[in-house]
Amino acid sequence: MVIIMRAGASEEQIAEVSYLVEKRGMQIRRIIGEYQSILGIVGDVATLYSEREQLERLDGVENIVRISKPFKLASREFNPVDTIININGVIIGGKDIVVMAGPCSVESREQILETAHIVKDAGAKILRGGAFKPRTSPYSFQGMGEEGLKLLAEASQETGLPVITEVMDHQMLPMIMEYADILQIGARNMQNFTLLRAVGEAGHPVLLKRGMMSTMEELLMSAEYILACGNDKVMLCERGIRTFETYTRNTLDISAIPVLKQLSHLPVIVDPSHATGKWDLVAPTSKASIAAGADGLIIEVHPHPKVALSDGAQSLTPSNFIDLMKDIDCISQAVRRCYERG
Amino acid sequence: MVIIMRAGASEEQIAEVSYLVEKRGMQIRRIIGEYQSILGIVGDVATLYSEREQLERLDGVENIVRISKPFKLASREFNPVDTIININGVIIGGKDIVVMAGPCSVESREQILETAHIVKDAGAKILRGGAFKPRTSPYSFQGMGEEGLKLLAEASQETGLPVITEVMDHQMLPMIMEYADILQIGARNMQNFTLLRAVGEAGHPVLLKRGMMSTMEELLMSAEYILACGNDKVMLCERGIRTFETYTRNTLDISAIPVLKQLSHLPVIVDPSHATGKWDLVAPTSKASIAAGADGLIIEVHPHPKVALSDGAQSLTPSNFIDLMKDIDCISQAVRRCYERG
Amino acid sequence: MVIIMRAGASEEQIAEVSYLVEKRGMQIRRIIGEYQSILGIVGDVATLYSEREQLERLDGVENIVRISKPFKLASREFNPVDTIININGVIIGGKDIVVMAGPCSVESREQILETAHIVKDAGAKILRGGAFKPRTSPYSFQGMGEEGLKLLAEASQETGLPVITEVMDHQMLPMIMEYADILQIGARNMQNFTLLRAVGEAGHPVLLKRGMMSTMEELLMSAEYILACGNDKVMLCERGIRTFETYTRNTLDISAIPVLKQLSHLPVIVDPSHATGKWDLVAPTSKASIAAGADGLIIEVHPHPKVALSDGAQSLTPSNFIDLMKDIDCISQAVRRCYERG
Amino acid sequence: MVIIMRAGASEEQIAEVSYLVEKRGMQIRRIIGEYQSILGIVGDVATLYSEREQLERLDGVENIVRISKPFKLASREFNPVDTIININGVIIGGKDIVVMAGPCSVESREQILETAHIVKDAGAKILRGGAFKPRTSPYSFQGMGEEGLKLLAEASQETGLPVITEVMDHQMLPMIMEYADILQIGARNMQNFTLLRAVGEAGHPVLLKRGMMSTMEELLMSAEYILACGNDKVMLCERGIRTFETYTRNTLDISAIPVLKQLSHLPVIVDPSHATGKWDLVAPTSKASIAAGADGLIIEVHPHPKVALSDGAQSLTPSNFIDLMKDIDCISQAVRRCYERG
Repeated sequence: MVIIMRAGASEEQIAEVSYLVEKRGMQIRRIIGEYQSILGIVGDVATLYSEREQLERLDGVENIVRISKPFKLASREFNPVDTIININGVIIGGKDIVVMAGPCSVESREQILETAHIVKDAGAKILRGGAFKPRTSPYSFQGMGEEGLKLLAEASQETGLPVITEVMDHQMLPMIMEYADILQIGARNMQNFTLLRAVGEAGHPVLLKRGMMSTMEELLMSAEYILACGNDKVMLCERGIRTFETYTRNTLDISAIPVLKQLSHLPVIVDPSHATGKWDLVAPTSKASIAAGADGLIIEVHPHPKVALSDGAQSLTPSNFIDLMKDIDCISQAVRRCYERG
Repeated sequence: MVIIMRAGASEEQIAEVSYLVEKRGMQIRRIIGEYQSILGIVGDVATLYSEREQLERLDGVENIVRISKPFKLASREFNPVDTIININGVIIGGKDIVVMAGPCSVESREQILETAHIVKDAGAKILRGGAFKPRTSPYSFQGMGEEGLKLLAEASQETGLPVITEVMDHQMLPMIMEYADILQIGARNMQNFTLLRAVGEAGHPVLLKRGMMSTMEELLMSAEYILACGNDKVMLCERGIRTFETYTRNTLDISAIPVLKQLSHLPVIVDPSHATGKWDLVAPTSKASIAAGADGLIIEVHPHPKVALSDGAQSLTPSNFIDLMKDIDCISQAVRRCYERG
Repeated sequence: MVIIMRAGASEEQIAEVSYLVEKRGMQIRRIIGEYQSILGIVGDVATLYSEREQLERLDGVENIVRISKPFKLASREFNPVDTIININGVIIGGKDIVVMAGPCSVESREQILETAHIVKDAGAKILRGGAFKPRTSPYSFQGMGEEGLKLLAEASQETGLPVITEVMDHQMLPMIMEYADILQIGARNMQNFTLLRAVGEAGHPVLLKRGMMSTMEELLMSAEYILACGNDKVMLCERGIRTFETYTRNTLDISAIPVLKQLSHLPVIVDPSHATGKWDLVAPTSKASIAAGADGLIIEVHPHPKVALSDGAQSLTPSNFIDLMKDIDCISQAVRRCYERG
Repeated sequence: MVIIMRAGASEEQIAEVSYLVEKRGMQIRRIIGEYQSILGIVGDVATLYSEREQLERLDGVENIVRISKPFKLASREFNPVDTIININGVIIGGKDIVVMAGPCSVESREQILETAHIVKDAGAKILRGGAFKPRTSPYSFQGMGEEGLKLLAEASQETGLPVITEVMDHQMLPMIMEYADILQIGARNMQNFTLLRAVGEAGHPVLLKRGMMSTMEELLMSAEYILACGNDKVMLCERGIRTFETYTRNTLDISAIPVLKQLSHLPVIVDPSHATGKWDLVAPTSKASIAAGADGLIIEVHPHPKVALSDGAQSLTPSNFIDLMKDIDCISQAVRRCYERG
């Protein structure tokens, strides 16, 4: 951490800053520049940095610059080896691309069972499906609730596919853990710190979606909450950010894949369905995500998207999905070949 | 609602769309253009629009355009008269500017009592203060919890100022309602629909903050959730949005003030402290907000910002605040004079 | 085009709108809704739409919604067949991925000749290099000028690679056309309409970069300027947009690739060097771009990036580039296989 | 400037960086931290910083952080006194708010003369009007050209109001300088460095608009180009930035006013017409801008906005404008009173 003093800061002001820093057990190294002094702070600065706002208020302080990253347990430096998560035998974060697929919402027994078989046959390894849906309008379909969870569990048992579903609320956690193998934290909950702590303590595998308004650093800070509670089975999920472009629902931040892999040891999953909002953009962005190094994909598939109760516009039909799985397979083989050659 | 058919859509496709729309009791008016047909939908389209994604999947449909607004109870059309909220005698949404002020976090009995007296003497009508703090880092100060609420209530009793504090979670609601007069929904919770419903049912006055990457329409949709549960004491709060500009913490969307007043009957409050993140920008943006037509302000004041445990950089000192209140007074008199003249 | 009248608009107001529209030779189809009337406009609405602001001022008009796209010559509807551009035998927009590579700036005879041979040997088909550099600081290196163009031409002759270079100004156009095979319009000039018209009339092949805060529609409108002047050799270039994320210089909008291919018949080239600003993100985003369907890439390569006079941080070394070309080759073969299978 | 070395950087790597820095006449101050070394650079770092990309490529370098600002002549430190610009007796940057008003485009002799008289009588001090219009569509009205300039000059002579008009191109500069008193650089040209240098050398007063995708720092860098060429009569203009919010054309960045006044000595003018794109938002945002400390406003007024050839939707009618001028007057008196009291 570096404290930049204003041009013209007095020796007294510098002394006050130094005193406060040293009182907390850290050391100061001062650089006297042509116009300004700079104070380098040596020691464990995590706490000090989280209180930097106080320091910024001190007279003579112009700015405070962080040198080290604000997350630890999530960082590549802390754990240089890729985290691998085993979900009932499905390995995430290893050599193979894992595809999670299923409908946006569970709508009926028939629909979820049919979809589960379709996605399994096409090569998906995890079944997705929502039972509680966060909807921007109070007048929209809000999900089937626990009944939906039971149907998901039934589909899981029939096909052997582990299940991922969204947990919207820490109170629902015990109920959802009865039925689901992976807990999904939605984009709108990425900074619901109560929920982050609850899933951290629960210990269940978690897929943490990036908020549509959040930086990669903030995503890693939220992962840090879960890790700090002792749960190291965290997957990061890029699902598009909000920009000025309105043609797509969100803008898939493809660079986030290699950046998150550089900064962190956690697996990176991409959600091309929500990132684009249009079914005919799901295939090209899925292939792009694999080529950029993603560990997996989470994709919306509906047997009859025209009558889906939510997200019909972005769901693939079974035949679209089967084609996409073939493409993903040939891209991921090419990526692996590139990798092994390199 | 208007359904735009693709150039070259067949009569059969148009018939399928028409059939589905009419089945739901609505009527179709067709316009045959040079290249494309357009289907105007007449009737109560709110539900149909919330399911538009299905319609978009129908063959031959290019796009669906909403004509009427997706919110009703929050709209100016629904209630042309300004909503006025009375908080123990403090009138919000009327002729007078209401200033809510206090520290970001309650830190001690002394601090909150001292601040309460300072802001009251300077003319503030509501006391703000956080007891539970949502923090991006798990290593930061997280608030005093219920102890903080008790201190707030004591400060309220001593000064007679009603209290506003943030509710982060629907489970905390009963406890917070014991101590607080206004419930604040933070920007990160603007789309926490469980919480919106809970405060809607609770019936307590609510200050709803705009998410930092939410549109004004989404803010009004979230207000709609609360109103739809029967609570009509809702204030909208503009607190800055996230943009590419990094000099300020967020970008205060000053136009949101007149736009929200046009679209809705609810009072509009501005939070210049979070919008800018810098104490020396609070005064100019406060004055600008009043001039643009805001009904009130919520401002961070700390007796000793240099040692604040959170948000020190954006808190005003007591003397800054006293000066600002004088400025606000002279701007708001000028605005009222303008208004009365006009 | 659809004109939405306000709830409560009078018959007189509707008559005035209709009169103005019909005076221009278009027809009106009126839909009487429950609350509002909607006027569908039939006829050639391009001119009318460009003047929509007048209509929006008429009493009783709430909003005007476009149905058809604001560009014609650039649209897929106008020309359903992919445009193919032949640059001295190099085919852009066909089956093969075309890579354009070279230094950000021409710095010396030695540097550009060395780089030209390196990129040619690795498989690049076009040589890139800047002679005039738009720099945000007046104190930065501004390029070698015409001397740089001569060196580019020499490198082109020695290697047989056609040359692409930026034209910043319509006055420079005759000079640059003497030396360059493709004219690059930089992101900052995407809406320099004088320049767009000049290159449109010049007839030389053009690579048009998307402005860093321009929508895809605006990019296509700028392409329309060039096409409308009779030059149909236009390539679209995605080079990253500006968002709130600060880790990368810009955010590569990967979805723009399939979207632009859907909306337009023009080839799409991606610039991963400027999109990310970091050399170690160039390889993953290049592979992603190919997988998403790009027709080509433009990449910065410098024999000694550590001493580059501009953009050193995002330039590949020769050995990075050779590796990347192998990866691109294996991804593009996989994509083609996918495609042929499909 | 501070160079942050990676954790684990070798002494050799640090020596290489130090060697390169010292070769350029600067000095290094090293801070040895717990994990990483930091090198503080002392000396005139402007040139070194503009070449920082080379340094970032050196082995062992993690990041480079600027301490001082990248602009000099435009900075408040360079000139602590507010710049005042005198345009034929109209003082900009002093105590009084200066309003520039007139139509978006000159459309006819009658229109511009009528408007000039109206805005003068209402209290405007400068006449605005466009003769050459940058339009996103090649099919829109492009302005009257030199004929428009002549009409502007005639209106100026009749009313005594100095004239501001846009210069789109450095070639047009001599012609435009014959007729105009202030040169406007449009948002799309904020980084047209050829044009910036040309107006810098011309020495005529300049109004420099912020690009809709540009940070405040970039605006000041562009001002620096003009100042560095010897022209110190530069006004900065905030005209809205592009964000995800679509209700307004752009988002007026109200905080830019106090921030630019802090960072720079140049006058700050606000363009509420382009910032909002809607005439009924012009009045509230104009008042807000004055309250936030702007030195002036530039406002579109049209005698008959319904038939305007451009920007009709955002133009005020004469009677709207007269009302607004009264409001501006009462707000600016209140601001001045606040100021004098403070």
